[in-house]
Amino acid sequence: MAEECRARECIALLRGLRAVRQFRPEPVPDAVVRDILMVARWSGSANNRQPWEIVVVRDRQTLQALASAEGYAGHLAGAALGMVLVMNGERPEMETFDEGRLSERIMLAAAAYGVGSCIGWFSGAGREQVKGILGIPGERLVRTAISLGYPDEEAQRARPRPAQARKPLAQIVSYERYGQRTASSP
Amino acid sequence: MAEECRARECIALLRGLRAVRQFRPEPVPDAVVRDILMVARWSGSANNRQPWEIVVVRDRQTLQALASAEGYAGHLAGAALGMVLVMNGERPEMETFDEGRLSERIMLAAAAYGVGSCIGWFSGAGREQVKGILGIPGERLVRTAISLGYPDEEAQRARPRPAQARKPLAQIVSYERYGQRTASSP
Repeated sequence: MAEECRARECIALLRGLRAVRQFRPEPVPDAVVRDILMVARWSGSANNRQPWEIVVVRDRQTLQALASAEGYAGHLAGAALGMVLVMNGERPEMETFDEGRLSERIMLAAAAYGVGSCIGWFSGAGREQVKGILGIPGERLVRTAISLGYPDEEAQRARPRPAQARKPLAQIVSYERYGQRTASSP
Repeated sequence: MAEECRARECIALLRGLRAVRQFRPEPVPDAVVRDILMVARWSGSANNRQPWEIVVVRDRQTLQALASAEGYAGHLAGAALGMVLVMNGERPEMETFDEGRLSERIMLAAAAYGVGSCIGWFSGAGREQVKGILGIPGERLVRTAISLGYPDEEAQRARPRPAQARKPLAQIVSYERYGQRTASSP
């Protein structure tokens, strides 16, 4: 019964995760931030390389500077904190994949505590700008920052929302062979 | 109280996820596979593009053929099923990141049901081999397959295990500026 409950709770968390871009001003407690970082720490990676570091930013001016770097991270300006992911920059394809795994876990750990989050993405010159702002060595790869904070439900509702629907399973799942849309009975 | 419980259960799931490469022979029920696919379906992606499809493979011969494609997916041979991720192949960097997010969710959803999993990675000619085996159109990008099944605890224990430790937080987390290892008091 406890296991069933666990499955249900966890599946609900996983299914229910949505990006949050509008935050209330109150800070996220240190203990919650620490638990999120512990989940991040235990992320799996190719060959257990753990090719990452994380810069935690709460300073408002720094968040605003990051938000104005080239890319899609404007929501950092209003976040309670940001986590900037610093990748080793040695094996681009694997590290990009591992960075996605790490990001998803950070968002999920936050959601477990009712903390909203959104992935910000630096592009073009933004990546070097961020390194400059945070003093990150040149050889590292910086492209992602995750905004975190308690959701401002009212602002979220007021905001014009893009359609958040997802493709139906029938359109994305095949069985045994690509394009075979129904499971053959065994 | 219920919320605290939820946070604890979910954080435990997130922190506890480890790769499983040795599986018991029994199948994973359809209802569980469906729930895992629903979690996959609701994955977030850049601009909500959902640049993915999934091929679910239970046929033993197909699993063995996939396992012998070039790369690191040998564990598919003994899995109850495999999920092969088929990416659109249009925006490599973003899709690689999104593929990592998707993979992590599939593993976590499986773990919520006590199902073990491991990421398999195709390299070199393996990617084209897999497309051939499953009839996947040439323009798509196929590099990841996730093995799923109930963990064979005994085989897992018997297997020589690489160190699964993770770097300490003090080594991977900075505050406000790269390399500043302690949070400045506010």
